[in-house]
Amino acid sequence: MDINKIKSKRTKVMEYSALSELLRVTAKPEIVSLAGGLPAPESFPLEVIGELNDLVLKKYQGTALQYGPTNGVKELRIAVSDWLKKRHMKADPDLIGITSGSQGGLDTLGKIFIDEGDAIAVESPTYIGAVDAFAPYGPRYEAIDTDDDGIIPESLDKILRTNKIKFVYLIPTFQNPTGRTIIWERRKKIAEIIKKHRTLLIEDDPYNSLRYRGVALDPIQTLAPENTVYLCTFSKVLAPGLRVGFYVAPKKVADLMVAAKQSVDLHTSSYSQYLATEYLKTGHLKKHLPKILKMYKSRQEAMFSALKKYFPKSFSWTKPEGGMFVWVTGPEKFDSLALYWKAVENHVAYVPGTYFFTKQGIGKNTMRLNFTNADEKVIDKAVKKIADVIKKNL
Amino acid sequence: MDINKIKSKRTKVMEYSALSELLRVTAKPEIVSLAGGLPAPESFPLEVIGELNDLVLKKYQGTALQYGPTNGVKELRIAVSDWLKKRHMKADPDLIGITSGSQGGLDTLGKIFIDEGDAIAVESPTYIGAVDAFAPYGPRYEAIDTDDDGIIPESLDKILRTNKIKFVYLIPTFQNPTGRTIIWERRKKIAEIIKKHRTLLIEDDPYNSLRYRGVALDPIQTLAPENTVYLCTFSKVLAPGLRVGFYVAPKKVADLMVAAKQSVDLHTSSYSQYLATEYLKTGHLKKHLPKILKMYKSRQEAMFSALKKYFPKSFSWTKPEGGMFVWVTGPEKFDSLALYWKAVENHVAYVPGTYFFTKQGIGKNTMRLNFTNADEKVIDKAVKKIADVIKKNL
Repeated sequence: MDINKIKSKRTKVMEYSALSELLRVTAKPEIVSLAGGLPAPESFPLEVIGELNDLVLKKYQGTALQYGPTNGVKELRIAVSDWLKKRHMKADPDLIGITSGSQGGLDTLGKIFIDEGDAIAVESPTYIGAVDAFAPYGPRYEAIDTDDDGIIPESLDKILRTNKIKFVYLIPTFQNPTGRTIIWERRKKIAEIIKKHRTLLIEDDPYNSLRYRGVALDPIQTLAPENTVYLCTFSKVLAPGLRVGFYVAPKKVADLMVAAKQSVDLHTSSYSQYLATEYLKTGHLKKHLPKILKMYKSRQEAMFSALKKYFPKSFSWTKPEGGMFVWVTGPEKFDSLALYWKAVENHVAYVPGTYFFTKQGIGKNTMRLNFTNADEKVIDKAVKKIADVIKKNL
Repeated sequence: MDINKIKSKRTKVMEYSALSELLRVTAKPEIVSLAGGLPAPESFPLEVIGELNDLVLKKYQGTALQYGPTNGVKELRIAVSDWLKKRHMKADPDLIGITSGSQGGLDTLGKIFIDEGDAIAVESPTYIGAVDAFAPYGPRYEAIDTDDDGIIPESLDKILRTNKIKFVYLIPTFQNPTGRTIIWERRKKIAEIIKKHRTLLIEDDPYNSLRYRGVALDPIQTLAPENTVYLCTFSKVLAPGLRVGFYVAPKKVADLMVAAKQSVDLHTSSYSQYLATEYLKTGHLKKHLPKILKMYKSRQEAMFSALKKYFPKSFSWTKPEGGMFVWVTGPEKFDSLALYWKAVENHVAYVPGTYFFTKQGIGKNTMRLNFTNADEKVIDKAVKKIADVIKKNL
């Protein structure tokens, strides 16, 4: 059997990931990795899940283990709808769909919208997982200019004026990879632009709950609900291993998403869905979230201190009020990719920033650091090691 | 926002399912449905899952709730490898991948193999869920002739000789919808044909464990491991709501499947995977499976009796030694689709057989009946109702 004769054309974008190769070494126990995007396992509410297990089996019995509706169990869609009221979102349970993590939502959106060669507008840099989800469907990207306050509305407007764009993909709050948040004034402008061009916004909002300082901003969805698909997840506030995400979408989009998801996995784990339902309904999220925030806030502060203490003065970094990442920018001549293997030799890893750009060859002087999956001491040590490698090679 | 301007071409095959419309009424409480393909919720080992919950949290702790590898957790791949030895399969854990139900495997296979217009060879009739999974990727179908002993090897050989086929999709044991099993002599011939043409077989085997009588036949995979992707699931022996399936594939295919799955859902629920692991490792499957078999055997016998008692002499049906379905064939003039709404008026439902054929207009005189999701009395009553409607309208 010759696999090259039978594989589809789209496999060429899926087969080899240079970044996966790069990050494979981070699995070695001697490597301290700031490269991942993992929550801290010690942040998972293990005891709570023990309680919820008993509750779910007792309350839902066989239903918790049976096939369920493709758009998700009703109890969870209602509980999510209530939860989202805190973000000032009006999300009818019928417009909410449960996905297998946010990734499940991204794949579905790619499937229902992207034909080969279609253009999508994205932040520059943007989230690799979204690019991976869309890639098999063959899009091209228009990169929206960004600064410290998020995307520049005029850049978005220009792209929408001069291109036929299938949708705009943004992570407005604590963005991956930069940690940046789009400020309120720009959110309003973006909503107007989206509506003016009658286009679709995909607002990916996985880090919304992870705010350690400052005042929460309402999602852009609240300003343009008929033009926005809002994605979120339980991965950062409960546990990613359960693979439960959700979306809020205009009716016509929601219907298409359900139709597409049906053929992908029928539905997301019923059992995981009921655990998430009861996590919300019994008030456990409310009780547990402050513990996560306390842990991550301290780790983020440790990273800020270490960067200030160890990194050369020619480097700068974002100071997000939440999320999981800090984005470091070095001087023009700094090449984080070239330095990667030297860092690994020194038993430390990060993600070279260039991988987050849809245009090749940009962002060589940047890197993404994660602060949620290591404690303060480890973060301090790892940042120092990266700084040492930089200083030796600059 | 005009959704028609942004949706992808592939949505046209996903948007409307005539069958879904048809089956929507079966959700009404007054309808006794033999249309579904659901396991009995009373077959789920609720108490066992209660025990396994405690065990999994204690043994794996945060790991059970954290992101995991895309090909599945190692413990489960090893446990599945051991389990498959009973089917005389040599399945190296590295060639096993965990999917979000069998459906997850089918979607991934469609994604990595099918370009628009590619041909796939399938049994006639075949499983609707597979056709749905492949549909968005735009295949055309070559239907393999079948009789009571499964597909006719010469028909497969002819199709492979005269067409460029991407893969052959079969459910050799207790097929959905017919319940038929491909006999051993034909399995050997099919393996030879597959190897001779250097083509790929997808062997979907969800019902393997559900054997109530007779002698188990080894999967075709054992005869052509280098040319076969073997799919199976925990949905029929543990619980479908956990959404855990798996495959065994040649290395090159397994690698592609992992790459494709990564962008679809990152990985299948870690927690569900560890539950399945311990279900196998602690011997609970071995203890629990006989209970499922006893329940379904009796229900199947109730269906056979009722068909014999109530159906006109001009009707015949398959007598599978296992699985979940019986396939009924009426006289030429019988039209199960035309009769469907009259059956629903009489508070009973089935799946009109024509939906299982990839060529339109075939199989109008057939229907699929499920016997796992209703008890003996309900089955007797429902079969009688269908017979009454038939007799009134024949």
